Amino acid sequence: MVDQQTWERRTEWPMAGVALLFLVAYSCQVLLTLTPAWHAVCEAVITGSWVLFVVDYVVRLVLAERRLHWFLHHLLEFLVVVLPAIRPLRLLRLVAMVTVAQRAIGGAIRGKVLVYTICTSTLLLYVASLAMLEAERGHPDSSVKSFGEALWWSMTTVTTVGYGDYSPVTTTGRLIAAALMIGGISLIGVVTATIASWIVEQVAEEDAAKQAATANQIEELRHEVRRLTESLRATEQKMPTS
Amino acid sequence: MVDQQTWERRTEWPMAGVALLFLVAYSCQVLLTLTPAWHAVCEAVITGSWVLFVVDYVVRLVLAERRLHWFLHHLLEFLVVVLPAIRPLRLLRLVAMVTVAQRAIGGAIRGKVLVYTICTSTLLLYVASLAMLEAERGHPDSSVKSFGEALWWSMTTVTTVGYGDYSPVTTTGRLIAAALMIGGISLIGVVTATIASWIVEQVAEEDAAKQAATANQIEELRHEVRRLTESLRATEQKMPTS
Amino acid sequence: MVDQQTWERRTEWPMAGVALLFLVAYSCQVLLTLTPAWHAVCEAVITGSWVLFVVDYVVRLVLAERRLHWFLHHLLEFLVVVLPAIRPLRLLRLVAMVTVAQRAIGGAIRGKVLVYTICTSTLLLYVASLAMLEAERGHPDSSVKSFGEALWWSMTTVTTVGYGDYSPVTTTGRLIAAALMIGGISLIGVVTATIASWIVEQVAEEDAAKQAATANQIEELRHEVRRLTESLRATEQKMPTS
Amino acid sequence: MVDQQTWERRTEWPMAGVALLFLVAYSCQVLLTLTPAWHAVCEAVITGSWVLFVVDYVVRLVLAERRLHWFLHHLLEFLVVVLPAIRPLRLLRLVAMVTVAQRAIGGAIRGKVLVYTICTSTLLLYVASLAMLEAERGHPDSSVKSFGEALWWSMTTVTTVGYGDYSPVTTTGRLIAAALMIGGISLIGVVTATIASWIVEQVAEEDAAKQAATANQIEELRHEVRRLTESLRATEQKMPTS
Repeated sequence: MVDQQTWERRTEWPMAGVALLFLVAYSCQVLLTLTPAWHAVCEAVITGSWVLFVVDYVVRLVLAERRLHWFLHHLLEFLVVVLPAIRPLRLLRLVAMVTVAQRAIGGAIRGKVLVYTICTSTLLLYVASLAMLEAERGHPDSSVKSFGEALWWSMTTVTTVGYGDYSPVTTTGRLIAAALMIGGISLIGVVTATIASWIVEQVAEEDAAKQAATANQIEELRHEVRRLTESLRATEQKMPTS
Repeated sequence: MVDQQTWERRTEWPMAGVALLFLVAYSCQVLLTLTPAWHAVCEAVITGSWVLFVVDYVVRLVLAERRLHWFLHHLLEFLVVVLPAIRPLRLLRLVAMVTVAQRAIGGAIRGKVLVYTICTSTLLLYVASLAMLEAERGHPDSSVKSFGEALWWSMTTVTTVGYGDYSPVTTTGRLIAAALMIGGISLIGVVTATIASWIVEQVAEEDAAKQAATANQIEELRHEVRRLTESLRATEQKMPTS
Repeated sequence: MVDQQTWERRTEWPMAGVALLFLVAYSCQVLLTLTPAWHAVCEAVITGSWVLFVVDYVVRLVLAERRLHWFLHHLLEFLVVVLPAIRPLRLLRLVAMVTVAQRAIGGAIRGKVLVYTICTSTLLLYVASLAMLEAERGHPDSSVKSFGEALWWSMTTVTTVGYGDYSPVTTTGRLIAAALMIGGISLIGVVTATIASWIVEQVAEEDAAKQAATANQIEELRHEVRRLTESLRATEQKMPTS
Repeated sequence: MVDQQTWERRTEWPMAGVALLFLVAYSCQVLLTLTPAWHAVCEAVITGSWVLFVVDYVVRLVLAERRLHWFLHHLLEFLVVVLPAIRPLRLLRLVAMVTVAQRAIGGAIRGKVLVYTICTSTLLLYVASLAMLEAERGHPDSSVKSFGEALWWSMTTVTTVGYGDYSPVTTTGRLIAAALMIGGISLIGVVTATIASWIVEQVAEEDAAKQAATANQIEELRHEVRRLTESLRATEQKMPTS
């Protein structure tokens, strides 16, 4: 029987595929006016992906060494599996894939952070717009009636601009908005932090005289002291024995 | 007779309890339509907690070594005790508890900052929404009529999105909004700063050759120089006396 | 005859006083409905302060060693003296006083930055609200009719919340708004940067093993190497001459 | 035949001139009501600059050593040349000039970043306002009817204030808005990061005892150890041969 880590490594790509299938089916349902047959297909894919997510969750829970500990540290995944309202969060699996892909490719930290931020923001904007459209278009007071409008609203929210020409009126819509706002604050944080890290580095490199001492330099200094110690020992041996 | 520090250490948990009781009574008064009997109970709890806060404040002022100095450095607490309008700030006592709890548990700085930020933000959002609802619902021009709307407004304010679909019209409401905005700017600051600190660390660790020299390495180098000095002294003693 | 630096040191407090007088007279004119006599007094104070600013500017220009260079580096002051529309910027003199006061008191950098930010923000909010009220209240489409509303609008602008319940419609009002927005971005920047600096320091101190090597430690190490060199020289002198 | 780098170095100033000509012609077309003759002149300049951009792009693609690699890394330039809708992005050539000019002048990193940010922001605001006006003024629901309004809208967007008194209704307008929002987030990031870098430096310099060890100090220490080693060798040679 496999252990939990092996299971997770083996299922990470298949589960990302399932999440992608779910995304396609969910997009079709929200964006297109489907014939009953296609609607049933989409419904089947969505239900199927949900079953696979439940199975994956249960298997990992069973395989976990300390089940209660694992359960408490994966509370979000439990909610994603149990509550239909937050099912778009299953796409976090796709975001996790970005990390996996980057591990394979390698590269500098700041480049990785940038790519990760762009991928996550794009997915977040797309999914939030889909969910927003589904939640709001049925409501009489809502101004969000098309995917374009939902996308525009998402953009003004995630950048914290918030014109207010479109704003959610349903509870679901407002929960999605809250998630987007938190995402937006994090986005500003990541962008700023990456630039700050770059500027700090540039300023340090600019003035060579102020450059920080590195571990390497200390290491070289140590070699010299060691060589000195050896010279001394050699000198001692050459000395006339008293 | 106890000194001020002992008093503060002994009363920190009881006073947090009093603040919690105040929070419950205040929430009931604002959110529920109470029978006169329950209303009186809530009123009694709120008055009682106020009396305890006054007593605590006076005792600490009396126990302080330099009373004027203490008074000037605890001006906010004086105002919280004296002005009924800002009584929700008594809940700062609960926020202080987060610090105490973390001191007991321990953990890395960034983790602590994160937990502290989440707790404070949640409490801030809840209390600001309560106070907002109390201040605005009686005003004819106000659009905030339910706790859900107040919470939604708080969220758009603290993230600096500001759609403008709900905005305060009373002076009290605007003061609460100003406090939330300052809280929001600080929130963005803390989130960004935490991410920046993490990225700076990752970038430094990434390139081992550029890793900063640590105090430990200098210490080891010093040991080596000291050993060398001792060798030299030993050599000297072995030398034939001239 | 005095040189420029002496002049500036001697006039910094008097000119700050003049700026304060200007602030009081300007506030009275905007906020109160004055009798013609008092209006004339305010007008006289405003004109008088302007004359003093012009005199101060001309004296400093004449005393400057490289006049063209000084003129180009003090273009903002030239505009403040010449354009009546931006006369509230004379209060920059008061902001400069904060720096002078802090130089006298001393203290840690982050504390200074905090005090400076609070003072500047408060003054900025107050003056922007005054100027906004003066610019907008005469316009038929404007919604800003009282100082309270102007202050509320300033607060929503400087924190970049921007509800849109009040927004300027005159060109002067929009220029003031633009200045406030730039001030707001800088405010967020300063708050975030101060927190970031604090967190970076805390993280570094947390793990003593990772603490950066300091210049002091290197200095101590050097003393030890020097002592070693001296020991060697002493040894050498004790040696039998060959 | 020249190589790609020589070509780029030789054409950077002429192409910046072409971009500037394009900017002038585009501004005239949008802002002024031209006579048919002048309209034709502007049209000719715009078309001519486009031809030159195409020629420049093709020459650089042909001269590139690894063409596919170069094509994939200059996808944005391809789109700028091919899509008429994003032709204002040709002005990126002017932004590139700021970098070139700064390379010539020199100066500290933070100063450069500041100048670059101010130049880019100003150009971004101007061009976005132009493009916005062109896109929105024909639309019946749009509120942006003059260049002043477009500029005011750009300012509220780039600072993420977003009052919502003006907001785009056309798809082109919303794409421009999205670009401005991303620019705004980056602007906040750059401002914050520059301030953070400055504060971190000030805090470090403040406490001389905590100043980081610099590479220079390590270098000096190494000289001393080397001198010591040489002394030892000299001592050894003076020793009586056993």
